[in-house]
Amino acid sequence: MPVFEIYEYRERIKKTKKRMEDAGIDLLLVSQPANMNYLTGYDGWSFYVHQCILVSLDQEEPIWIGRGMDANGAKITTFLKHENIIQYADDYVQSDVKHPMNFVADVIKQRGWGKKRIGVEADQFYFTHRCYAELEKSLPNAIFKDGNLLVNRVRLIKSDAEIDFMKKAGKIAEKVMKTAIDTIDVGVRECDAAAAIAHAQYSGTEEYAGDYPAIVPLMMAGEATKTPHLTWSEREYKRDEAVLLELSGVYRHYHAPIARTIYIGNPPKLMQETSEVVLEGLQKTLDYIKPGVTAESVEEKWREAIAHSTIVKESRLGYSIGVNYPPDWGEQTVSIRPGDKTELRPNMCLHLIPGIWYEEVGFEVDATIRITETGYESLYDFPLKLFVK
Amino acid sequence: MPVFEIYEYRERIKKTKKRMEDAGIDLLLVSQPANMNYLTGYDGWSFYVHQCILVSLDQEEPIWIGRGMDANGAKITTFLKHENIIQYADDYVQSDVKHPMNFVADVIKQRGWGKKRIGVEADQFYFTHRCYAELEKSLPNAIFKDGNLLVNRVRLIKSDAEIDFMKKAGKIAEKVMKTAIDTIDVGVRECDAAAAIAHAQYSGTEEYAGDYPAIVPLMMAGEATKTPHLTWSEREYKRDEAVLLELSGVYRHYHAPIARTIYIGNPPKLMQETSEVVLEGLQKTLDYIKPGVTAESVEEKWREAIAHSTIVKESRLGYSIGVNYPPDWGEQTVSIRPGDKTELRPNMCLHLIPGIWYEEVGFEVDATIRITETGYESLYDFPLKLFVK
Repeated sequence: MPVFEIYEYRERIKKTKKRMEDAGIDLLLVSQPANMNYLTGYDGWSFYVHQCILVSLDQEEPIWIGRGMDANGAKITTFLKHENIIQYADDYVQSDVKHPMNFVADVIKQRGWGKKRIGVEADQFYFTHRCYAELEKSLPNAIFKDGNLLVNRVRLIKSDAEIDFMKKAGKIAEKVMKTAIDTIDVGVRECDAAAAIAHAQYSGTEEYAGDYPAIVPLMMAGEATKTPHLTWSEREYKRDEAVLLELSGVYRHYHAPIARTIYIGNPPKLMQETSEVVLEGLQKTLDYIKPGVTAESVEEKWREAIAHSTIVKESRLGYSIGVNYPPDWGEQTVSIRPGDKTELRPNMCLHLIPGIWYEEVGFEVDATIRITETGYESLYDFPLKLFVK
Repeated sequence: MPVFEIYEYRERIKKTKKRMEDAGIDLLLVSQPANMNYLTGYDGWSFYVHQCILVSLDQEEPIWIGRGMDANGAKITTFLKHENIIQYADDYVQSDVKHPMNFVADVIKQRGWGKKRIGVEADQFYFTHRCYAELEKSLPNAIFKDGNLLVNRVRLIKSDAEIDFMKKAGKIAEKVMKTAIDTIDVGVRECDAAAAIAHAQYSGTEEYAGDYPAIVPLMMAGEATKTPHLTWSEREYKRDEAVLLELSGVYRHYHAPIARTIYIGNPPKLMQETSEVVLEGLQKTLDYIKPGVTAESVEEKWREAIAHSTIVKESRLGYSIGVNYPPDWGEQTVSIRPGDKTELRPNMCLHLIPGIWYEEVGFEVDATIRITETGYESLYDFPLKLFVK
């Protein structure tokens, strides 16, 4: 059974169909794993082969299409009628001579959708160029449209049930970061800290399980603090170095990221100053956030708040978050940066991460928030500071 | 510094260029993370944004192109000269108005490659349809060719240094499966078993670190044993149920998968019989394996070995493995199934996984092997049997 009540899924499908109508799309082919999960409940690490769901304006329920061995997984995890779970034979997998999208095209033709306006998620990972080329070849009478981010935009405003999941993820995030700070110290191997962090992520709390994050623990120490996306090795932590941590608590694929910086030893002046500027700037930015303000104005507030310092942050300040699968926990819709005029609205969830990855100093901290009716609330409870060990 | 000696990378690039010449490709755009790592050493969880390396016949070294904040990561992890590490501005990330492939096309034009025959990895995740469409639009005089699996095919035969990595992964795999079997029992939550498994995967051995697997622990119990790709929840294991485990040991992104089945209680007759047939069939198949036999003949041997039983396995028996990143540890080249006429050769590595996911019974076991000069050797040392607790 899926993890939400069935009416939740029906509501999501209704909103998706509304957007499809507005975009002139009759049939939407959804291959992004989080979007598949969002619309049907489908869950499973089967996205390393091609699979999709089809949402058609003229059919109430979506259709799941995937590899034969995963059809039972679809029966277990989705609310779909079994007649709407369709499997392809195993010789379509990673074949030189046939492609799963040829099978999908056959289903589309059989249902009489071969001349429809078909939307595809053109810039989502898991929808390769060849997926498109095979569909185009197999469906010569269809009109293809870009349905990229169409479902992602529906995901932007969370239901109360989803917010409950996000808060559960936040509880796990607290435990995860506490574990990291307790574990990391002089002489401890990075890999053993990563192991303790993963243990906390997967086991969750006494009441509920944690889940695997869409991004593994990012943990940069020493020289590596000048870049944000490295992981770990058998290297041991040393005295007088910073450790940047970008982690997450996850509950049923809903993410509450948490980022903090540890300094092992006495932080040098540049680290002290950088952390103070960033922490103060982040707090001023948060104080500004409420429904109705735009994403770009939040970034502007941040820039103003650090203007008195030498810090320049060229990358976006943050982005929207929610349900996701590897490789990204970001929703890829709202970005907190110049040009993004999205108005913040209640039950959007944002990850603000003013990370600084300079040659001379690196510092990370974040805020993971829900927009409320009047302002914002944090999805976890954890001190906003530089941790010194 | 990259993890292999630089001459290893130069050898890989040489082999890649040879295949490019044979395929009529002047410039290869490589976006698959394992291929990027294989050719340059690049490592980092940055593949959630578009990035690539360019391999040109007329230039010795590849060029890395990625997001600004990841350029220092490329400097740390690759052997490339800094002039060959090129970064794009952050406003290319997940933008409605510009795309990283426009930037890549600009680099291609600046280098005088705008009219060349350009190969792309058309069916690799991380090369979306829009990547292709933007390149095609920005490079109207280029001739595009499919370079899918070109680098993957170079990866098929491992160097001795890579085999050493695979064996280190195998050592970790032994520890990982032992941890799983020791942990799983009546009343234990699935998520706590998953946590113990992840801990073993990441921490590795006393001598060297483990790494994150390209596929998280797959662990099906009870009803879920009729499908292969589910994960875990807070559900507790019960007496008289099977637990199917597909895990992996990983060393610096090199994978040694390991799959076994646990029965908690007294295995019923059908489970006993199924496991005996599969284990005996796998052993007979392994006894047949040596250099010169074809992938499809290995599958035929397996089919013959279980022909006396009622077991039918419709999915492929296995595939080649090595270095990889999420979402797949398979190399996507050799498949052990009818029609694959690849001849096995020394230092190929294969994952044979005769998994049975019936409604009435599920059973998994595997063999993860290297082809030797005369036969095969297992990459880990672990009993081939049904584990009863």
